[in-house]
Amino acid sequence: MDLTDAQRFAFDALDLIGAFAFAVSGALAAVRRGFDVVGIAMLACCTAFGGGIVRDVLIGAVPPAAFHDLRYLATALVAAALIILWHPPPRLAGAPLDAADAIGLGLYCVTGTVKALEYGLGPVPAALMGVATAVGGGMLRDLLTARTPSVLRRDSEIYLVPALVGASATSLVTVAGAYSWWTASLAGLGAIALRLLALRFHLRAPLARGGRDRTEG
Amino acid sequence: MDLTDAQRFAFDALDLIGAFAFAVSGALAAVRRGFDVVGIAMLACCTAFGGGIVRDVLIGAVPPAAFHDLRYLATALVAAALIILWHPPPRLAGAPLDAADAIGLGLYCVTGTVKALEYGLGPVPAALMGVATAVGGGMLRDLLTARTPSVLRRDSEIYLVPALVGASATSLVTVAGAYSWWTASLAGLGAIALRLLALRFHLRAPLARGGRDRTEG
Amino acid sequence: MDLTDAQRFAFDALDLIGAFAFAVSGALAAVRRGFDVVGIAMLACCTAFGGGIVRDVLIGAVPPAAFHDLRYLATALVAAALIILWHPPPRLAGAPLDAADAIGLGLYCVTGTVKALEYGLGPVPAALMGVATAVGGGMLRDLLTARTPSVLRRDSEIYLVPALVGASATSLVTVAGAYSWWTASLAGLGAIALRLLALRFHLRAPLARGGRDRTEG
Repeated sequence: MDLTDAQRFAFDALDLIGAFAFAVSGALAAVRRGFDVVGIAMLACCTAFGGGIVRDVLIGAVPPAAFHDLRYLATALVAAALIILWHPPPRLAGAPLDAADAIGLGLYCVTGTVKALEYGLGPVPAALMGVATAVGGGMLRDLLTARTPSVLRRDSEIYLVPALVGASATSLVTVAGAYSWWTASLAGLGAIALRLLALRFHLRAPLARGGRDRTEG
Repeated sequence: MDLTDAQRFAFDALDLIGAFAFAVSGALAAVRRGFDVVGIAMLACCTAFGGGIVRDVLIGAVPPAAFHDLRYLATALVAAALIILWHPPPRLAGAPLDAADAIGLGLYCVTGTVKALEYGLGPVPAALMGVATAVGGGMLRDLLTARTPSVLRRDSEIYLVPALVGASATSLVTVAGAYSWWTASLAGLGAIALRLLALRFHLRAPLARGGRDRTEG
Repeated sequence: MDLTDAQRFAFDALDLIGAFAFAVSGALAAVRRGFDVVGIAMLACCTAFGGGIVRDVLIGAVPPAAFHDLRYLATALVAAALIILWHPPPRLAGAPLDAADAIGLGLYCVTGTVKALEYGLGPVPAALMGVATAVGGGMLRDLLTARTPSVLRRDSEIYLVPALVGASATSLVTVAGAYSWWTASLAGLGAIALRLLALRFHLRAPLARGGRDRTEG
C-alpha cells in the first residue's frame, strides 16, 4: 500500500500529535516521581518513541523514524520543556497524565496500524501491530517509573480495548480503501473517547474466577 | 539450512506447544497478581511471544512469526481462556506456573536454536539465540509483574543451565545433520527434565565469594 | 562511511573495553543483590550487550555483533569470572560499580555513534544512537535489579549529559573526517572524565519547578 500525499500528511499529523501527547504523559510521570530535568526529557522521549520504535523494528523499518526524522525529537523535547516550565503539583499530575496518555493511545493505534499495512502486513497482523504501538510507550514509561503497567493492573480502567477497537477500525477502513484524514481521525477520536469514558465511569474488565482471593505471593 | 516438511512440522509443533506452555505460565502469573481478564490475556501473550519476538528481531526475521502466523495468537488466547475459566487459587498458582514455565523453557531453547541455524547463524551463536529465546518471555513476564526474573534470583533453582544444555544439544545434533522430530523432542524433554529436577531437588548455582554477606543497598 | 583497518582496530578495542567495563558493572550489581554465579554471568552479559544489541537492531545490523562475534561473549564472561573470584563486600560495591559504568558509558557513546555513521545514518541520528548505546545496557541492568535507572533518578549525578557530549564530539570529528584512534579515545576519555567529575562533585541536573514537593503517588 502506498500513501498519497494527503494520506501521508494525515499520518504525520496524527503521529506527531500522538508523540506530543505521550511525551507530555512521560514528562508528567517523571515530575510525579521527582526526576530532574534530564530525567524528565529522557522519560518524555522514551514514552513518545517507545511504541513507534517497537513497531518500526518489528516491521523492519529501521532505523526507526524517531531517530532519522528529527521532528519527533523536537516534538518530544518541546513537550518536556513545556511540562518543566509549567506543571501541576506532582500529587495532582495523575488526571492530566491519564488524559495525555489516552490521546497518545488513540492516535498511535491508528498510525501504528497504517504503517504496518504500508509495510505489507495483512489486516489482522497490522491491527496487532497498531495495538503494540499504542501500548508500548506507556508500558515502557510505567516500567521505568517502577509501576505495574496500566494495561495489566486490575484496578485500572480498560486500556487495551480502546486500542484494539481503534486499530481494528483503522485496519478495516484502510483495507476497504477508505483511509483518509477523516476516517483516520475518526478512528483515533473513537479510541480516545472510549478510553476517557472508561476512566470517567471506571469501566473495568471482569476478573477471572477467584480473582478476588488474591495473594501477592 | 532448509527444513524438510517433516522437520518443519516438528518445529511448528514444538514451538506452538512451547507458546501454549508459556502462555499458561503468564496467565497464572497474572492470576496470582489479581489482574483482570484483559491483563491475563495480555500477559499470556507477552510471555508466549516475548522470547520468539526477541529472537526473530535479532536474526532479522521480521515481522516476527507471532504477528503474521495467527496460530500463535490463537494458541496464547486459548491458553489464557482456559486459565481464566479454571485456575488454582492464586496462592497455589506457583507450582503449576513453574511447571508450565519449565515446558516452555525446554521447548523454546530447541526451536530458538533451530530457527537461528535456519537463518544462517553458526552453531555457537545459534545456541545463544536459543537461550535468549527460552529465557526472554519469562524475563518479560517477571518484569511486568514486578518480580526479579528467576534466571537472576539467588533463591531460585538453576534456570539458565537447562536452557543452555538443551540449546547446545540441539545445535550439535542439527549441525551433525541429525535434526529430526525425535532428536528435537529429546533435547527439549531433556531440558524440561533438568529444570523440573532442579525445582524438585532445589538445585541452585553456587554463590560468589562473600555472597552471603549481602546488603540490598 | 568505511573504516580503514586502523580505524576498525580502534573501534574494536574501545568497544571491547567498554563491554568489559559494563560487564564488571553488571557483575558487581549482581553481587550487591546476592545473585548466584549464573545470575552474575547473566547480568554481566545483559549489561555488556544490552546497549549494543539495541543499537544493532535499530540500525539493521542483525544478528548483532554480541551474538556472532564471540570475543564479546568471552570478554563478558571473563569479567564475570574475575568479579566472582574477587569482589568487594556487597555493601562497598557501589563505587567500583559506578566507575566501571562510567568507563562503559564513555566508550559506548563513541562506538555507538561510529557504528551508526558506518551504517549510513546522518550526524544527529548517529549521535542519538550513540547515546542509546551508552545508556541502554545500564538501564537494562537497573531494570533487572529492580532499581530506577540512574539516567532518570533525581538523586543521581548527571549521566545522560556526558554520553551526549561524547557522542556529539564523535559525530562531529567523524563527519569532519578526523576520526582516528586518538580522536575517538579522546572523546571517550572526555565523556568518562565528565561522568567521574559529576560523581565526585555531585553535579546534578536542576529539578523542574515544584519538583521538591513530590509525592510518590
